[in-house]
Amino acid sequence: MQKKAVVLLSGGIDSSTTLAVTKSLGFDTYAITFSYGQRHRAELESAGNVAKHLKVRRHLIFDLDLRKISRSALTGTSEIPKNRSMGQIGAGIPATYVPARNLVFLSIALAWAETMGARDIFIGANTIDYSGYPDCRPEFIESFERCANLATKAGVEGEQIKIHAPLIDLTKQEIIKKGLDLGVDFSLTHSCYDPGPNGRACGGCDSCLLRKKGFEEAGILDPISYAS
Amino acid sequence: MQKKAVVLLSGGIDSSTTLAVTKSLGFDTYAITFSYGQRHRAELESAGNVAKHLKVRRHLIFDLDLRKISRSALTGTSEIPKNRSMGQIGAGIPATYVPARNLVFLSIALAWAETMGARDIFIGANTIDYSGYPDCRPEFIESFERCANLATKAGVEGEQIKIHAPLIDLTKQEIIKKGLDLGVDFSLTHSCYDPGPNGRACGGCDSCLLRKKGFEEAGILDPISYAS
Repeated sequence: MQKKAVVLLSGGIDSSTTLAVTKSLGFDTYAITFSYGQRHRAELESAGNVAKHLKVRRHLIFDLDLRKISRSALTGTSEIPKNRSMGQIGAGIPATYVPARNLVFLSIALAWAETMGARDIFIGANTIDYSGYPDCRPEFIESFERCANLATKAGVEGEQIKIHAPLIDLTKQEIIKKGLDLGVDFSLTHSCYDPGPNGRACGGCDSCLLRKKGFEEAGILDPISYAS
Repeated sequence: MQKKAVVLLSGGIDSSTTLAVTKSLGFDTYAITFSYGQRHRAELESAGNVAKHLKVRRHLIFDLDLRKISRSALTGTSEIPKNRSMGQIGAGIPATYVPARNLVFLSIALAWAETMGARDIFIGANTIDYSGYPDCRPEFIESFERCANLATKAGVEGEQIKIHAPLIDLTKQEIIKKGLDLGVDFSLTHSCYDPGPNGRACGGCDSCLLRKKGFEEAGILDPISYAS
């Protein structure tokens, strides 16, 4: 029988590629996407399209209104930083940081995994072309894995829970190439933090800039269009 | 200025005493209670009454429907074990275990704490007269604290996040005596996993049995009534 894995899927380049990697390793895939009050809700639709395209066993959209407890440019109305230089991106923790987001998301993914007997959880965290979020670093992922094994019945009873971050040391262009190799359709993906009313990517937020740079460096045409 | 602390409050004996301990240490208290699909929803009302009685700065009830992702006698319709012996309680992980519950709750409490500048989080976990849940043990609490400091901007920027479990090695009778000393009104608290339609405690679930034993051993009359 295929082993089950839970994959955190936001509908962006990294998580979509991670889902494809998980499938390529032979796992039966269960994708979870969080509707947490993000202003870029277009990503929920993208996540659904990617999940369908990559034929996951199940795609769950989990509601969790982080606006009640956290403050971030991603969930609030304050301005999303635009057109920063690559030196600025990743140099500090930006306004788009959502407190403890990956810890909350991984914890809920773990609860789902344990319930259905999955012992493997995949997350698209990476630290090369990234925004400087603390909860994307390998030391956080490793620490969470230890904590998950102490927190759960599965872990205590000797079944090792494993947190996989297969993209952790890849550049954005390497992620894009890997995704294409594994059949990801990047026209379905969404990266922008601040899309227009039609869902069109702004082209200037950190996430758009990192995506554009990745496609340029990979020498591949980005299949989505930008407002600027 | 008073330091802020977030306290996980379920409305039971342990979390209510923990809230009183937090106040006695001089913290400005912010209580968080989770509406997670538990069948013993009477505890939400109890938590509200305890929060009011102990004059917290703010009490937040956070919605998080764990029934979508987890299976437990506490959130489902399967039977709650009744009238087990003290030898049985705590000897293994029971049917009322909710996968990764304390990890999920602490993660969300951490997000709230970081957002409002609190660096201290209090949880009423204890491991003497308890139900055998893995996520109540000190090694889990310590591991979560390490993870929290790696996951957050606060932790990375050198402000130590501290997870306090002040009851961790107390017996139930010691917790009850401490709570009374600190002014907890236990008539407001709720412990039962399987209350009747009127909210009355069943008297036979592990949680009722541990509570009754604690009051008996403390030589104090339990102010609530039981169905049996």
